[in-house]
Amino acid sequence: MGKLSKNKAQSSNPGIQAATLADNLNNLSPKELGDYLFNLSPQDRADVFSYLDLNTQISVALLLKRRDLAKLLSCMSSDDRANFYKSLPEDLGEEVLPALAQAEREDIRRLISYKEGTAGSVMTSEYATLSCDLTVEEALIKLRREAPDKETIYCAYVVTSGRHLIGLVSLKDLITSRSTRRIEEIMKDEFVFSSVDEDREDAARKIQKYDLLALPVVDSLGVLVGIITHDDALDIVTQEHTEDLERFMAIRHERGTYLGTTAGEHFRKRIGWLVSLAIFGLASGYIIHTFESTLIAIVLLTFYIPMITDSGGNTGSQAATMVIRALALREIDSSHYLKVLLTEFKVGLRLALILGSLALLKVYFLASLSNQVLPVPILQIAVVVSIALGIQVITATLIGASLPLLAHRLKVDPAVIASPALTTVVDITGLFIYINTAKLLLSV
Amino acid sequence: MGKLSKNKAQSSNPGIQAATLADNLNNLSPKELGDYLFNLSPQDRADVFSYLDLNTQISVALLLKRRDLAKLLSCMSSDDRANFYKSLPEDLGEEVLPALAQAEREDIRRLISYKEGTAGSVMTSEYATLSCDLTVEEALIKLRREAPDKETIYCAYVVTSGRHLIGLVSLKDLITSRSTRRIEEIMKDEFVFSSVDEDREDAARKIQKYDLLALPVVDSLGVLVGIITHDDALDIVTQEHTEDLERFMAIRHERGTYLGTTAGEHFRKRIGWLVSLAIFGLASGYIIHTFESTLIAIVLLTFYIPMITDSGGNTGSQAATMVIRALALREIDSSHYLKVLLTEFKVGLRLALILGSLALLKVYFLASLSNQVLPVPILQIAVVVSIALGIQVITATLIGASLPLLAHRLKVDPAVIASPALTTVVDITGLFIYINTAKLLLSV
Repeated sequence: MGKLSKNKAQSSNPGIQAATLADNLNNLSPKELGDYLFNLSPQDRADVFSYLDLNTQISVALLLKRRDLAKLLSCMSSDDRANFYKSLPEDLGEEVLPALAQAEREDIRRLISYKEGTAGSVMTSEYATLSCDLTVEEALIKLRREAPDKETIYCAYVVTSGRHLIGLVSLKDLITSRSTRRIEEIMKDEFVFSSVDEDREDAARKIQKYDLLALPVVDSLGVLVGIITHDDALDIVTQEHTEDLERFMAIRHERGTYLGTTAGEHFRKRIGWLVSLAIFGLASGYIIHTFESTLIAIVLLTFYIPMITDSGGNTGSQAATMVIRALALREIDSSHYLKVLLTEFKVGLRLALILGSLALLKVYFLASLSNQVLPVPILQIAVVVSIALGIQVITATLIGASLPLLAHRLKVDPAVIASPALTTVVDITGLFIYINTAKLLLSV
Repeated sequence: MGKLSKNKAQSSNPGIQAATLADNLNNLSPKELGDYLFNLSPQDRADVFSYLDLNTQISVALLLKRRDLAKLLSCMSSDDRANFYKSLPEDLGEEVLPALAQAEREDIRRLISYKEGTAGSVMTSEYATLSCDLTVEEALIKLRREAPDKETIYCAYVVTSGRHLIGLVSLKDLITSRSTRRIEEIMKDEFVFSSVDEDREDAARKIQKYDLLALPVVDSLGVLVGIITHDDALDIVTQEHTEDLERFMAIRHERGTYLGTTAGEHFRKRIGWLVSLAIFGLASGYIIHTFESTLIAIVLLTFYIPMITDSGGNTGSQAATMVIRALALREIDSSHYLKVLLTEFKVGLRLALILGSLALLKVYFLASLSNQVLPVPILQIAVVVSIALGIQVITATLIGASLPLLAHRLKVDPAVIASPALTTVVDITGLFIYINTAKLLLSV
């Protein structure tokens, strides 16, 4: 952040001050932080608090008196408050609720009732509504009055007396319309919205696709229950990407920054999948052992097992990455499955040709370094490795592309197809392909 | 997208119409698409065109007459236009320029002059400016008049006669202030901005961190040259995610959707790194061969090479993923290098203990299936594999964490540390560790 003008001691932009302050405060002890926060005005305190890491927020909350915590909660914005409340230890949450005003209590209860990961769980209840029979002038007066309490007044929502959403009016439309016109004449009655139980990522993608400032969220009856703002969309997209990446690398996702996570927690995030894979890896160990006689007849063959398995892991993970990302960006839907598989087959074929030829040269060169007594010419071994590697690359590419499509079909997040798991699977297929190619072509 | 009210045949929200239309149009042939577009009004045409894939845009542009292309360009928004112009074949670009108005020509020339990846390359020149001696009433009149031509009027930029940026005024502040107050009294003179040659991702992260609607971009003299809007920040963050992920999986990044890319192009995106890795993989092949005598004395040892190399690949990639993501989210800077390495060492130690113990059990079980005549007891072999695997896990975790930190230190994007490349590196370290552990403990 920069300051172009430095002639004022006090910042006139509380948002910026809060975000910058919070950066420096995350390093203080909870006690020091609590003391610091209580020298601020209640609103500044809530602003700075909202920008702190969730872990830091909770450590501070645990030190506060019930009444102070309630006051802090009541100054926070509706979505930040619900999000923070969800993470409080249950007994502390229960304890602080009665100290809040009834409206705030109900707002928290309502917002935390939506399932994690849905549009409902990330929305805020601070939006401006208008009724369609107001004039532009009356609407502007209402918005001016409500401005300080609303997360955004740049888009106002037109609702019926039963709070059914029937239109949108932007502040731009209001200030450029004649003051005597009625809202129903200038409102947009075709608009994008989200339902409360829709995936929060789908909601964020709508904000992105249609360049929205905010997305209204309605319940099953079409009643407006909240909005998701553009800045939340950015956070959702970033969080989803982190989750996808971690899942893809077989890391369990948990909230919290890298530095805010202890070594023990980092360990627990990673060990789960690794143990499963180690156990699953018994299968490839077992396969090697069942073909022991072939491998002992030509020990040289065992030297190229890593080459076969690595090629499968790399090409399979590449294919999976491309398909998972295209699914995440909604570039592919179920109507494209066949087209994707056909494309991947064509890609795999070309990769197989190039990598197979390279393997031929590599093995021919490496095997000539060997002192082993071979029952077959070196060239034959090179051909076997090269053919097996080619088949392995095509198979791994198709498996890598198919598994995320299958997950998508089963309505599971395609990013659950972790690259290490895929590697373990194509290790097994690769060993089968390799040893059977050798048995067939070398007749040992 | 949904429609709550369906009682109007024509959409009253052109943005939504354009985005939805463009979705369906990407599947038409360029000829059909050209015909379709020319039945729309010039402004609608430009709106729909802006939402098309870049590849589709170019195919259509190639079919248009020079005059029609110029008309289309002049109706596009400043940033979309510059972005599209950059991708046109050079001769077509040169040809169409003289048909544009001078202001548009200069705007394009200026915007395309900024280096790809900088804040300058993604900004728009359509923003509203105010001078600080205007009254609120005068400012509102000016914004109302300029509204249709500006990408956003929700934030207006206060500039001197030399266009130096000295403050910001939000439309919210304007409509809630007394109409006789002067802009200099209500403007915010502390604000976040970006310089033209700053990384576009850093600019997007500022928009995200400070929840901004738009970020002003200034040149080295503090002169306002453009703004980056919140919707562009979402697109930048999404594109950077895709690029990081692709790089990390050793895929060359190119613009374009999955389905809009041919099999040949997909192949070219992936083959580059794979060939480099195959060549680099010669090193591990060579190492195996130099230890041939050890491995032939106990062939069983070769059976566990994949177990050693895979563990290194998985744990190294996990560590790299965590560090790369933390660097991308600006959670880590150079002051944290040592702390990160210490954390990773602690994590690696724990992973090594668990995975090493599992390996002991696995090898003891698998080796008992073997018919090979062994010069040492099975337990000794299991201990060797287990110890080597433990050392390999710690080494790979440290290498996986160090390489992105090193890239960051050298001001290279940490995501260049590709997982397959890392796998190839830890294959080599793993083989060294394994074979030397065997030689030392088994004395063969």
